[in-house]
Amino acid sequence: MKSPDDSVDYQSRIHESFGLQGAMRTLGAELTHIAPGAVDICLDWAPELTQQHGFLHAGMVSTALDSACGYAGLTLMPANAAVLTIEFKVNLLAPAKGQRFRMEGRVIKPGRTITVTEGRAYAMDQGRENLVATMGCTLMCVQDRQGLSD
Amino acid sequence: MKSPDDSVDYQSRIHESFGLQGAMRTLGAELTHIAPGAVDICLDWAPELTQQHGFLHAGMVSTALDSACGYAGLTLMPANAAVLTIEFKVNLLAPAKGQRFRMEGRVIKPGRTITVTEGRAYAMDQGRENLVATMGCTLMCVQDRQGLSD
Amino acid sequence: MKSPDDSVDYQSRIHESFGLQGAMRTLGAELTHIAPGAVDICLDWAPELTQQHGFLHAGMVSTALDSACGYAGLTLMPANAAVLTIEFKVNLLAPAKGQRFRMEGRVIKPGRTITVTEGRAYAMDQGRENLVATMGCTLMCVQDRQGLSD
Amino acid sequence: MKSPDDSVDYQSRIHESFGLQGAMRTLGAELTHIAPGAVDICLDWAPELTQQHGFLHAGMVSTALDSACGYAGLTLMPANAAVLTIEFKVNLLAPAKGQRFRMEGRVIKPGRTITVTEGRAYAMDQGRENLVATMGCTLMCVQDRQGLSD
Repeated sequence: MKSPDDSVDYQSRIHESFGLQGAMRTLGAELTHIAPGAVDICLDWAPELTQQHGFLHAGMVSTALDSACGYAGLTLMPANAAVLTIEFKVNLLAPAKGQRFRMEGRVIKPGRTITVTEGRAYAMDQGRENLVATMGCTLMCVQDRQGLSD
Repeated sequence: MKSPDDSVDYQSRIHESFGLQGAMRTLGAELTHIAPGAVDICLDWAPELTQQHGFLHAGMVSTALDSACGYAGLTLMPANAAVLTIEFKVNLLAPAKGQRFRMEGRVIKPGRTITVTEGRAYAMDQGRENLVATMGCTLMCVQDRQGLSD
Repeated sequence: MKSPDDSVDYQSRIHESFGLQGAMRTLGAELTHIAPGAVDICLDWAPELTQQHGFLHAGMVSTALDSACGYAGLTLMPANAAVLTIEFKVNLLAPAKGQRFRMEGRVIKPGRTITVTEGRAYAMDQGRENLVATMGCTLMCVQDRQGLSD
Repeated sequence: MKSPDDSVDYQSRIHESFGLQGAMRTLGAELTHIAPGAVDICLDWAPELTQQHGFLHAGMVSTALDSACGYAGLTLMPANAAVLTIEFKVNLLAPAKGQRFRMEGRVIKPGRTITVTEGRAYAMDQGRENLVATMGCTLMCVQDRQGLSD
């Protein structure tokens, strides 16, 4: 997947935007992979992120997946663009039980206005990696809207 | 909507389960309404919950909506049941800009195994309440599975 | 919900577009209600539209819901605009068992580029009307793209 | 992906069920691939299946995708089971423009009650194959419910 001419700086733009997200700090999330059309985010289990059975809350899984998908889309957008999530759907395949989690965001169809992405969440549990959630996420590229650049 | 015979205790079951969710404490979330097929959750804006523009992160909106929908479903399930989210979809209608937020979860179709719910997220911004997100959420009622009662 | 100035003709535009849809003829579908932000489509059960148990196929339910949602969005768009469906999600609440069906499309959030709609499918079965499916549908308004006006 | 012991007959069960679907005849659809966890359905463009611009209607794309996903799930279910679609979401990546279409249904997570599948729709247009739609589809396995076996 070809990145646009001005995407040479997307690494720094994404790191800067990520650093502005209070939610990512709350998750203890790290950007572990950034490439054209692909971003991974990892985080450790923490008691602040749990549902009633002690597993990672589906909403927290979604928070990391949404950011991974959004930044994956941003890698392919012009330098002055902001990315907005229009909608996402999450299927929860198994309880998010594990010590560490990896969320993958991947662009499956880039576009001038609309970009469609998919996410996968993996739980690393006692040395095994299990697919625990999938996301389909639709993004909009917004340009020249003051106060919204990523 | 009729609640099952044994749902007289759903208020205490939901409060107990809610109290076990680390994620709800992280959100600063409160249960503000519990009735058969209907649960509301409210929370205040906080820097720990933001995306890069300082608004509430879509994932945090989803976390509260998912819990509101899940507990709305639980009000209509047997006392020994646990509720699992199978999937949800969120449409983000506007930036979640506001000082306080209210998430509504409502059952639109209860069932023995599958319950379908809808959520609405409202941002209270300078005295105005705006609809900022909608959720469609599918739940499964799980009985007799050890370690999973809500 | 206010319709744009140039929407006075949306009735004729929608009827004309609907008439061009081979799929609507195959469904035996009729436009039974058109108002700003709201379109209803009705159709009768027919053996050509069934799944393996003789009920209306979920895909056929979706076909009519998608058109109802799309045209509901079009009522609020400029006269030279075309409407594209970006995505939709359908929850199937009950088998689509009945003699006649009514699909409602309603705009819940209009926008310059993105419009969010919701649909409801009702089956009329022996005099009773049952909600059998819900749809969440995201539309894009496309202007000035040759060959795409609705 | 292992198929259950009694799935040796899933080929004939799926062909029989497919033959009962009036909707599949209307689509001119054929089963072109059946394997454990995987079913493909192909169909030709026809004027009865179009939206207003002459492309395949998104709902007709969804009808074929839903059947492909449903039968993919059925390959992994017990012989006496019926498959119900709980919900699906479709992203429309490009107009469904082409002379022939192939819809792939794939199981990504089989389960005793809930099976999660994904679909891809490809348009063959003047010798090129384009991905035009993706589906995420959740199925329920229903056993011992009279009149519902597939």
